[in-house]
Amino acid sequence: MDERFLLMIPGPTFTEQSVLLSLARVTRSHVSREFEDVLRESLDALKKILNTDGEVIVMPGSGTSAMEFSIANFVDQGSKVLNLISGYFGEYFVQATKARGGVPVEVRCRPGLGFRGKGIRELVEREGAKVLTVQHVETSTGVANYIKEIGEEIKNTETIYVVDAVASLGGMEINMREWGIDVVFTGSQKALAVPPGLAIIGLSKRAVELIEEKKRELFFFDGRRWLAMMRNVRNYFSTMPVNMIYALNESLKRVLSEGLENRYLRHKVVAEAIRGGLEALGLNIVADKEFRSDTVTAVWLPENVKFQDLSNEMMRRNIVIAGGLGELTGKIFRIGHMGVVNPNDAISTIAALERSLSKLGYPVKLGSGVEASQQIFNKYNL
Amino acid sequence: MDERFLLMIPGPTFTEQSVLLSLARVTRSHVSREFEDVLRESLDALKKILNTDGEVIVMPGSGTSAMEFSIANFVDQGSKVLNLISGYFGEYFVQATKARGGVPVEVRCRPGLGFRGKGIRELVEREGAKVLTVQHVETSTGVANYIKEIGEEIKNTETIYVVDAVASLGGMEINMREWGIDVVFTGSQKALAVPPGLAIIGLSKRAVELIEEKKRELFFFDGRRWLAMMRNVRNYFSTMPVNMIYALNESLKRVLSEGLENRYLRHKVVAEAIRGGLEALGLNIVADKEFRSDTVTAVWLPENVKFQDLSNEMMRRNIVIAGGLGELTGKIFRIGHMGVVNPNDAISTIAALERSLSKLGYPVKLGSGVEASQQIFNKYNL
Repeated sequence: MDERFLLMIPGPTFTEQSVLLSLARVTRSHVSREFEDVLRESLDALKKILNTDGEVIVMPGSGTSAMEFSIANFVDQGSKVLNLISGYFGEYFVQATKARGGVPVEVRCRPGLGFRGKGIRELVEREGAKVLTVQHVETSTGVANYIKEIGEEIKNTETIYVVDAVASLGGMEINMREWGIDVVFTGSQKALAVPPGLAIIGLSKRAVELIEEKKRELFFFDGRRWLAMMRNVRNYFSTMPVNMIYALNESLKRVLSEGLENRYLRHKVVAEAIRGGLEALGLNIVADKEFRSDTVTAVWLPENVKFQDLSNEMMRRNIVIAGGLGELTGKIFRIGHMGVVNPNDAISTIAALERSLSKLGYPVKLGSGVEASQQIFNKYNL
Repeated sequence: MDERFLLMIPGPTFTEQSVLLSLARVTRSHVSREFEDVLRESLDALKKILNTDGEVIVMPGSGTSAMEFSIANFVDQGSKVLNLISGYFGEYFVQATKARGGVPVEVRCRPGLGFRGKGIRELVEREGAKVLTVQHVETSTGVANYIKEIGEEIKNTETIYVVDAVASLGGMEINMREWGIDVVFTGSQKALAVPPGLAIIGLSKRAVELIEEKKRELFFFDGRRWLAMMRNVRNYFSTMPVNMIYALNESLKRVLSEGLENRYLRHKVVAEAIRGGLEALGLNIVADKEFRSDTVTAVWLPENVKFQDLSNEMMRRNIVIAGGLGELTGKIFRIGHMGVVNPNDAISTIAALERSLSKLGYPVKLGSGVEASQQIFNKYNL
């Protein structure tokens, strides 16, 4: 595999050269005005992408640490937390809830299904849930939950609405303000197309107020200290990852210059083309039609095809794909199509998949998957 | 201030170009063998620097998050933690202890003093402390505590010995094995001369066993999950900061190729030369003679010299210095001299300080500080 491999996994995603090179800029002091300008610009861009009237926090970390931050600042000993679980990362919320003394109320659906709005309000009220958690995109199955519907259902309740947007932010629309979302978090390495290493948390106005109202015995995840530092880097608490913020800023500029609508449309079309190609090859997509995300597609492995063999064949063709997590290990493969992904990447992936599967004895009419993808790109004049 | 400024603060420190450029290498999958090789090499290098028979964990984070990790994995509800506090970051341990349900037993000394071994064993036994915490170098005062003496005192007790080496690791010797230290942590941006963004935790064999024996309700800071991932990156838990690890690996290679003894000697001599220059200018060093570190020097501001003015004058001369933290804000300035610092940096700093102080009305015989530094470098034939 040479350096021109395509990283078609659900994160880290491909990073453009300009973003990578910005990592190599000279490290300024974490409390300097020069650094503060870069941070400020990044936070402003994130507010636009999140559509929030509140604030945004960036810290060294990952989606996992961002999740713990999002629970730790809103959950007290014994708080009930309604966890809507559509897969492996839904279970993470249960673990994070327990780690912070909360009491999880676990609602699960089978792999491939997700959650819509209907009935959620009743559930929240019946359980007296202080916090509701859900994945926007459940990375392990490629399922997109209807976070807008859910938000509209529980609007005007006291329940704090926490959305894991690790596998969606920057690739699918999120409107915190209009959808009534209090906390949205992600990592840098997904649809924002920055190398891994940052946790990003968007807060609604209400979430900011809640953090400021109540002092909790927190240390690294203390929202009050992070808010203070985001407002003024001289409110030093923990050293900011300066070079990673350079890269974030560079990528966010590119996100906004592409335009959010264009970016979401690109994700939608690439996703559709990839799914079209997969289905033309007779493969079965894990997510039900109603719940398919624009950023990740999980696919059932055909009988007699082992993940490791498929992965090796794809790697030999310079394309990296991901396997299953948890109970889906060995049963599925996953394609990430987010960040700076483009139609060429999608076509290359479907084409390599045709040749790889064929090599592994799965019956493929070479070109049939690609043709289906082509039809879809053509429909959108891409 | 142009891009050739000298970052003479106690972190982030100056990063060499080769290290910066390694950040810009193409991002591999966090579960790939190529990445695992880089991680493995980095962990092995860190084990050598730490002199541990145990294991090392690297994660996205900072010194602050590494501190919480180091408390969270060893402290239970109600555990007594003896916090030896020699300054601002000593207080961090108290906060981290409380955040994790521990009961801090706080022992403080005045700014400039530190802790030696004598009496520590009695203190630990009297208090029944499950954990003992101390800074190797207290960054806020430049004090170096005698962590070797303390370790020798409490060897063969059950007390878990946790050392904050944020401002020392890579610049001053640490021998976990011989000094009986169970946990040592640092950030990437100090004497290891990597940009900020990584938390690094070294564990003794006993510390590893303690983590593995007892399941705690932890999430992001769950040592068992991090150990599993360090041993095999396919034990996925949280996405590793791939590009930051490239930079860490590059810098660690340079640390080992310089040789640890040479590196520690360089730090010792540069520190001595800086202190010599400062004292020749009639300035007073915060740390008592007995407790001066080789990595950071804190200096009392002369009467009538304000920190912001001094900082501005120094910045105009392309040198960045740091101010005081907490109760020392406005009373001191600090010079970081760690990582890839060299005699030229030291001379430039002392010289710029002469001109800056002179400009601010403090009586300086130009050249007198530099001469004192020169004598010291000359003594070591540098």
